[in-house]
Amino acid sequence: MKRRFEEELETLKQQVLRMAAKTETMIYQSIQALVKRDLSLAQDVPTLENDVNTLQLEIDDHAFRMLALYQPMAGDLRFIIAGMKISSDLERAGDQAVNIMENTEVALRFPELKPLIDIPRMAELARGMLRESIDAFIAADAPRARKVVIEDDEVDALKDQVFREVLTYMIADPRTIQVGMPLILVARNLERIGDHATNIAEDVVYMVEAKDIRHHAEERGEHPAN
Amino acid sequence: MKRRFEEELETLKQQVLRMAAKTETMIYQSIQALVKRDLSLAQDVPTLENDVNTLQLEIDDHAFRMLALYQPMAGDLRFIIAGMKISSDLERAGDQAVNIMENTEVALRFPELKPLIDIPRMAELARGMLRESIDAFIAADAPRARKVVIEDDEVDALKDQVFREVLTYMIADPRTIQVGMPLILVARNLERIGDHATNIAEDVVYMVEAKDIRHHAEERGEHPAN
Repeated sequence: MKRRFEEELETLKQQVLRMAAKTETMIYQSIQALVKRDLSLAQDVPTLENDVNTLQLEIDDHAFRMLALYQPMAGDLRFIIAGMKISSDLERAGDQAVNIMENTEVALRFPELKPLIDIPRMAELARGMLRESIDAFIAADAPRARKVVIEDDEVDALKDQVFREVLTYMIADPRTIQVGMPLILVARNLERIGDHATNIAEDVVYMVEAKDIRHHAEERGEHPAN
Repeated sequence: MKRRFEEELETLKQQVLRMAAKTETMIYQSIQALVKRDLSLAQDVPTLENDVNTLQLEIDDHAFRMLALYQPMAGDLRFIIAGMKISSDLERAGDQAVNIMENTEVALRFPELKPLIDIPRMAELARGMLRESIDAFIAADAPRARKVVIEDDEVDALKDQVFREVLTYMIADPRTIQVGMPLILVARNLERIGDHATNIAEDVVYMVEAKDIRHHAEERGEHPAN
């Protein structure tokens, strides 16, 4: 029974890893399509979304069965619940990547506003946060997860910068409104992906330390990751 | 042990109800502030957000303890897990209400674009969906939950309408860009609240029927609520 349980935990880890890898690819491809102004670069996104949705159902189902069958305690219980929560955040991050693709489709109907700098930077940051939070989950590494929570401020600051810059263009030249709007929405999509990575990281800290750091911003600063 | 467990289930229900009522008030107040152009109407929102955040931690903590202590099976297990998931969606819906308040703050710096019709309608719909999904949870009523899932299309359609209308204003008169932008973002905030209500409703269907209707759009249509 014990060994069987360990195997199932390992399967759960693999499911989460596979789901995260697909979500990351969705983000990467949709941003590439926007930056290179070529929608075909995002052509795998709809298929990947299907895979991600299926994986979420599988993880949920698997986690439920493990809870019912093994009635795990303490750390194992927290690990399984974290896996369920994480799969829900990954699925929503994937939805945001689909939104990015849709906003890209709109943006590409109009002339380029300017070469994009901050949006791809935001995307790299958000994608890195997602990867780090998942790695922290697999390694049950709380300091690593705390680092992710701190990085979210940088993503938020970049979003504000994109907002300000695009708005300035729009006011100066109303012909840029229609291309500017989807860019603002993409910056918001990326901000949300950063939020999902932060949620995952917070779940990891709770899982490892049985301690909740959500809604305690002041505490985050007191525990710099190292 | 059995009676104690029943009492704790009842407490969990009460916690979710309290959290939902506060979240609804946050949405109501922030939209009132926007529509009546008076930010003081949203003055309770920050306090309510604190309460909602605290309640989420309490629900999570309570659910964890129940899982560890009683090792519930089948329907009870699904109810507790649903409670945790629902609290996470309520917290995020509350975050969206805070965003609405922030966007309202920006909008009120500029002259009124036009009397708002679709945004308050969207807000009423989204708030109604939230209430219905929570009532469906408490009553373990799957048909009621399915109705919520269908209503989400109406919220999405209204959001598209707001987008189109505001964009038309902005293009016709660039002086409306700065007031138009926060209105577009509010429409998006409300769309997200509708999504959270939909998530809750889907969790309720799963809880009641042990059947997952997420990511099966075709099936939703086949099971009209009645």
